[in-house]
Parts: sequence; C-alpha cells; structure tokens
Amino acid sequence: MPKRSEDYSQWYNELVKKADLAENSPVRGCMVIKPYGFAIWEKIQATLDKMFKDTGHSNAYFPIFIPKSYLSKEADHVEGFAKECAVVTHYRLKQAEGQNGLVVDPEAKLEEELIIRPTSETVIWDAYKNWIQSYRDLPLKLNQWANVVRWEMRTRLFLRTSEFLWQEGHTAHETEQEAREETLQMLQVYTDFIQNFMALPVIQGVKTESERFAGAVDTYCMESLMQDGKALQAGTSHFLGQNFARAFDVRFATRDGGLEYVWGTSWGVSTRLMGALIMAHSDDSGLILPPKLAPVQVVIVPIFKNVEQLNAISVVAKGMIRQLNELSITVKYDDRDTQKPGWKFAEYEMKGVPVRISIGPRDLEQNTVEIARRDTSEKETVRQQEVGAKVKYLLSEIQESIYKKALKFRDNRITEVDSYDEFKEVLENKGGFIKAHWDGSPETEMNIKAETKATIRCIPLDQKPEAGSCMYSGKPSTQRVIFAKAY
Amino acid sequence: MPKRSEDYSQWYNELVKKADLAENSPVRGCMVIKPYGFAIWEKIQATLDKMFKDTGHSNAYFPIFIPKSYLSKEADHVEGFAKECAVVTHYRLKQAEGQNGLVVDPEAKLEEELIIRPTSETVIWDAYKNWIQSYRDLPLKLNQWANVVRWEMRTRLFLRTSEFLWQEGHTAHETEQEAREETLQMLQVYTDFIQNFMALPVIQGVKTESERFAGAVDTYCMESLMQDGKALQAGTSHFLGQNFARAFDVRFATRDGGLEYVWGTSWGVSTRLMGALIMAHSDDSGLILPPKLAPVQVVIVPIFKNVEQLNAISVVAKGMIRQLNELSITVKYDDRDTQKPGWKFAEYEMKGVPVRISIGPRDLEQNTVEIARRDTSEKETVRQQEVGAKVKYLLSEIQESIYKKALKFRDNRITEVDSYDEFKEVLENKGGFIKAHWDGSPETEMNIKAETKATIRCIPLDQKPEAGSCMYSGKPSTQRVIFAKAY
Repeated sequence: MPKRSEDYSQWYNELVKKADLAENSPVRGCMVIKPYGFAIWEKIQATLDKMFKDTGHSNAYFPIFIPKSYLSKEADHVEGFAKECAVVTHYRLKQAEGQNGLVVDPEAKLEEELIIRPTSETVIWDAYKNWIQSYRDLPLKLNQWANVVRWEMRTRLFLRTSEFLWQEGHTAHETEQEAREETLQMLQVYTDFIQNFMALPVIQGVKTESERFAGAVDTYCMESLMQDGKALQAGTSHFLGQNFARAFDVRFATRDGGLEYVWGTSWGVSTRLMGALIMAHSDDSGLILPPKLAPVQVVIVPIFKNVEQLNAISVVAKGMIRQLNELSITVKYDDRDTQKPGWKFAEYEMKGVPVRISIGPRDLEQNTVEIARRDTSEKETVRQQEVGAKVKYLLSEIQESIYKKALKFRDNRITEVDSYDEFKEVLENKGGFIKAHWDGSPETEMNIKAETKATIRCIPLDQKPEAGSCMYSGKPSTQRVIFAKAY
Repeated sequence: MPKRSEDYSQWYNELVKKADLAENSPVRGCMVIKPYGFAIWEKIQATLDKMFKDTGHSNAYFPIFIPKSYLSKEADHVEGFAKECAVVTHYRLKQAEGQNGLVVDPEAKLEEELIIRPTSETVIWDAYKNWIQSYRDLPLKLNQWANVVRWEMRTRLFLRTSEFLWQEGHTAHETEQEAREETLQMLQVYTDFIQNFMALPVIQGVKTESERFAGAVDTYCMESLMQDGKALQAGTSHFLGQNFARAFDVRFATRDGGLEYVWGTSWGVSTRLMGALIMAHSDDSGLILPPKLAPVQVVIVPIFKNVEQLNAISVVAKGMIRQLNELSITVKYDDRDTQKPGWKFAEYEMKGVPVRISIGPRDLEQNTVEIARRDTSEKETVRQQEVGAKVKYLLSEIQESIYKKALKFRDNRITEVDSYDEFKEVLENKGGFIKAHWDGSPETEMNIKAETKATIRCIPLDQKPEAGSCMYSGKPSTQRVIFAKAY
C-alpha cells in the first residue's frame, strides 16, 4: 500500500480494496459494497434512522422511476439533473434474429421515457399533492432509504459513483418558519451524528448560489477536512421554499380559510459518508474506525503451537467474549489455524478493528492478556478479570481520541488570509480551509475557481460579521467565507 | 368498502387504500409504499434480517445495473427474464431544440444496454468469480436488501408490481450436500418467520419443472392459502446446482488439489408478503395484524367532553404508556380533539391495531379502562393496575389465535380427489388446495392449467409415497401433488 504522504489518492484506493470494503463493478461507475464495508454502512443507517424517528419522521418508499416530464416541472431542478440521467426507454429484450444474444425489442418502446431517480423531490411532491389538503395534514415528515443514480464521468469508490445508496428526507410544512426550523434541525442531527459517531468535526454553513441544490432556496451543509487538506461535503439540508409546491401545485387550506402553497425541505446523506469515514482517520497501515461504527469492536487472537494450547486459550477467550458481550461489545474470536498470528494482526490492523486482544501460553500462566489499540498502536498487559472494564474504557477513549486528533488536524488548517496572493500560497502549500473576504458575486467565485480550483465551501453559520474587502476584487465585504479544494 | 363475500378482489384494493398502506404511482405498475405500510415492512425486514444473521449470513450490496450480455450467460435464466426487463439505453437528457421539454440525447447512447436487475444471480456470480479461489473461501453466504424490476402487464399493489422490494440471498458452497442443506435451511427460516410472525400456515414443497426458478435445479417453496381459496406463494429457496458457477466460470481449488465448480443457492421473499399478510387475516371492517408485526400494538383513545376531562384522562394514560413501554409494547395515545372517539375507533379498526384501550370519565371514577381486541371485537372492563399484564397476555393470545384461525381455515380447504370431474367440481365450488395424483408429465400439468386455471403449487415435502393413477391421464403415479388456483 502506498503511503499517504506519497500518493494520497492511491493510498485511498488501495485501502478500500485491501480492507475489503468495496470494489468496482463491471458496470461503469457502479460499485459492489462488500460485506465488511456494508456492515459499517448498516451501523450508519441504524444510527441515523433512530435519530430521524426520534425527531418525528417516518419512512416510506417511492418508485425508482420518474416520468421524464416530471423532471421538467421545476426549472432549476431539471437544469441540475438532466445531464446525468440514466434513461429507461424499453421494457423487453428478445432473441436477436439469426444470431446469438439479446437485443432490445423495438416493439417494447415506452411512450414516455423513465428516468432512474437522481433524487426524489418530483415523484414525492407529486404524491404530496394528493396527501395534503388542509393544515391538518401538516407537517408531513418522511424519509426514504434508497438507491439513486447520477451518471458520473469520473468516479471513485464511495466518493462519487453512478449508483449510490442514501437517505432522502422530504418534509412539508404550514409556514416558512417551521420549514426553516426543520432544515436547521436536520443539519444539526447530521452534525451530531458525524461528530459523535464518525468522530469527524464539521463546519456548518450555507452554500453560495452557485453551489446550491437545484430547486432549493437555501442549501445548508457540513464541511469536513480530509488528511490531504481537501474538503469533503458530508451532507446537505435544503430549504425548498414553495418551489416544489408550486411546480406540483401542492396547496393547503390554511387555518383562516385561505389556500396557500406548502413549504418544503429535503435533506440527505449517502454512502459518500463511507469515503469520509475511511479518509478521515486511517493511516499507512490501514483503516482506523471509530468504535461506535466498527462492525467488530474487539478481536481476540490466540497464539498457540498445538491443539492443547488452543483449547486452553479458547476456554479463557470464551469467558472473555461472554463478559464483553454483556457490556454490549462486539467481539470476534479468530481461532483459525490456517493463518499465523502475525498475519491476523496485520489483517485486523488493515480492517481497523479498534481493540485487539492476544492470548498466548504465557498469558495463561499469568492470568493476563495483551491488549493493543489500533489508533495509537499502544500495547499493554492486562489481568484477565479486568478485561471487560479495560476494553469498555478503551473504546470510549479511542472514540474521543480520534475525534480530538481530527479536530486538531482540522483547526491547524483553518487559515485567515487577506490577499489573493496569500490565498494562492496557502492553498498550494498548506491546503485546508481558507477564510477570506469575498464580494458576494458569482463572477468572482467563478474566477477564483477557474484560476485555483478552490470553491467556496460555505458561508459558516457561526461567523461574526466583519467588515473587509474582497481578496479578489477589492470590493467591500461583510464577512469571511470558507474556501477549499474539495472532493 | 365492499365485503369479502361480495367482491374479494375489490375488498383487497380498498383495504390497501383505506388502511393507508400503499397506492399506485403515476408510473405504470409501480407503487408508493405509505408510512403505515412501510412500518409493517420494516418489522418484516428487521425480523428476517436477524434470522439471516443468526444463520451466518452477511449483507452486501451489488449494482442495480446488469449488462445485457450477462443475462444471456445462463440459458434458462435469460429465457425466464428477457421478456420483462426494463432497459436503460441512454445516460443523458437535453433540451428539445426549438421547443419546451426534454428529449433523450442521442449522443449519449450506451455501448451496451443495461438491464435493471430483475434478480441478481448474474452480477453476483460474476463477482464471486473473483472472490472464490479455494475451498478456504467457502462457504460464502451473502444477502442483499434491494429493489428489483420485472415489467408486469397486470399489476396489483404488493402482490404484483413492476418494481418491488425484496431480499435475495446468494450462497456458494464446496459440496452439493452443503448447498442442498442451505436451501432447505432457508426454506425453514422463511417458514418459521411466516408461521410465527405473520401467523400464516404454509405448506412446504418443491416446484415442478415448469414452475421452477429460471436457472435453478430445484425450487422449494412455501404455499399459503388466502380467504378466497386461492393460493399465494410466500417465498422460494433455490438449489442452483453448478449452473451459475458454470455460466460465470466460478471454480475453486478443492481440498485434494483438484479444481471444481462451486455449488450455489439463492432465496428470496419480497413486499409480496405484505399482500399475503393483508389478505390472510383481515375482515370486512379492515386490517387485522398479528401483534408481532403491528407498528402500533395498542392504541389508547380518551373519551372526553372538555379539556379538564382530557387532562385527567391523560394523567392515567401516560402512566399506562410507561407501564406498557416497559413491557416492550408499542403504544399510541390519540388525544386529538379534531376527531370523535367513534371515528378513531373505526380508524384503528381499519388499520388493524391489535388492542384498543379506551378511557372515559366513568373509568376514572372506577379505576378501570375498556379493552377491545381487534380480531374478535371482544371488549372487557379491566382494572387500571392490571392493564400491563392483561395487554401482554392479549397480544400473545391474539398472535396465537389468528394463526389457529388461519390454520383451521386452511386445513378445511385441503381436499383429496381421485377423479378429474371431482377435481373440477371442488376447484369451482370449494377452492383451496386439492391433493391429487399426477403422472409427472409437463403436458398433463399444462393441459390441466389450460382447462381449469389451476396449477401445481408444489409437491409437498411431508408427503408419504402413495401408489395411484393420474386423475387426468390415468397413468401410474407415486404420490399426490397440490393443485390450486393461485395469485
């Protein structure tokens, strides 16, 4: 595996492969999520799903197919997605005449082409039209877990794939204020998840017009920083205003007898989070997983020369597994005799198992085990009866420690600059987030992007107003925004 | 809502709609699964997922797209699915020239068309080719939860839709025996789930050649009986032999140094189970749900004339909710003042909530509540401190009772016949499962189907050999098979 310092991009690709997380499929740009990778995604799903339900949302399922005409109903929306749509045109294959193989049956052409959903606002707001008549039907707060397709030309496992898995929340409200509160609430839910479970610090902000979701009034986002100094957008929450309600004519009888368009939000995170998780903490020896999302939190490796030794170790190991399971800790006991302990150590290091326990003959004599933590590689000898308490402490300590490490890394790479020369210098040599004054115009934003590849990641929410002048145009500015090169 | 006895089919359609389970989408043959329906599906998913993991399976995710050429690699498989494939031919839309609206961009035509998966054997065995080299890589036991598309001409919500949700297990084994054991194990897992959770009795059997899964050596199935006397196939488990291993060249180094094709199985259940669940137990007043799969197990309805009464009732209700939650019982308290109690009673009857508790002013005086069970409509007055124990007992009693009712119904509709005239007579007037002798030939099977619309549902597994003669051809037969009209 190449080192991060040598070739970060190649390091990532190899890590995804060697840790058995995912692989490219024969279909361009699609991925196969392998069992170990999917087990991490299942933990992400389960945690978020509970957070959505705790904030009053229900799951539902809408069709994968969107009639072509639906996409056109919201002008900005179609502009944003038309260029990357997978289009179903036929519904049958037949044997090719006079030769082997199948051909599309020209007689089975659809009257109207169907788009594989790139996102589901259109099909969902079309349903909402029938579901919402009165203020009594509001709020309507739904979420769906689904696959979506956006035809991408340059793809990378988890970070950018033509098909990906995600959740998309779609809510409808009586008032603008309530919809805006929902948008920010979900941004906060995501932030809590990413910081407390993924151990990844984020900056909350709002997107500029040019980076806004196609069809939204405001797009809120969380921006995280990867180890190569590039930013990664970890999720977005959109205030849709009445745009989709207008496009699909969704009106409701108000409390005072009027008729008004419904206010909407949508918000989503995807398997892209897997990419962020992998890149955020891992090192040159492999994956480092936060204990709260690790499918296996502890692995026990026996060190033995013969069956008698293995049997004796297994008795101790099994007691330990019971003890750890009672503490709701997930343990794997790897007693295979087809691989040597050293091979297993490297394997679980690569797979990012947070804690490794090894038990050898000398441990049996002394009632001890060796405990190693993945993130720091520290080892210590622990008395067997203390393993439960020790591991429980370690898992919580690792969770906190990798967050702090990522936070320190990130905070060291937030740089304020006041001139465009300084901006380019920092961008080139240090990377990370750069806080600078911007005149608010899309032209300036576009020029900076064209000249440096850096984009405005967000206008941070916790920002204090500060008078200044745009580093590019010199025009007056009221606050700094955050620039970075991004995934 | 029409009565079952008047128009069973229309009763089902109305029930799905009125109980807020699902609706047709604007895209032909696709459905929107509404929150209440999806909450039931989530319970089905969670229960099955645990059963799969407890039997050593892991989840993974494979792409939705299958290259057209892959489908052709297994001859029977392509024969079975080519006629109902949704085909993606293009990857971009563009603005129509000189007019409004979008058209498919002819320059964005795919070199090879992509099929939306109707099932994933091909794409999964293609991956297995790289994953399996040696007997050490076996068994490989994966499952995926996914959406699939089979273009259906006549669709019905849950029972037959162009897009549906399902799980598909795909396993690879070293020996024929192990693969056969896996096939039967999963049949048993499904049976346990359907009988113990869905409260629906099934007959396990093996399909005849003509009803076999396209590409399987043997297809095992569970057949259940609906209230109109028609059969419904609740799930299938296939022994694939080495068919897909041959088609995708998946060979492994054996223990004795040889090279052999891998043995395979696949098995699946889908949102069709929702159709079975709805039809199996419900009555003319609405849905009847088995408590183990009910999203809301108990609803509490306060009966009040003013806010003071409501407040007093709410104090009692909230204590009761705590008490029930501690027993892991899911409770909804419906204290809306926009609807009358009678309206709410009808609503929860329609939605199949197993137990209803109502609390009125007189109950407050007497420290009682009224408890009604949905399946029998029986009501009784219960002292408040006994509610927890009473409801816990009732939920288990209802689960058992509706299973017994369905079993009795089913057992009363298994008829042995020995002549074709008798067969037709029973089929026409009584319906249900008919056990008859069959000569084993596809021709006889086809003729009977053409003449009566009845198909061989299965050759039951628990069948004793019994010499006889085919009711249709008079030729010798060694056992009875089960015929029925089916969904």
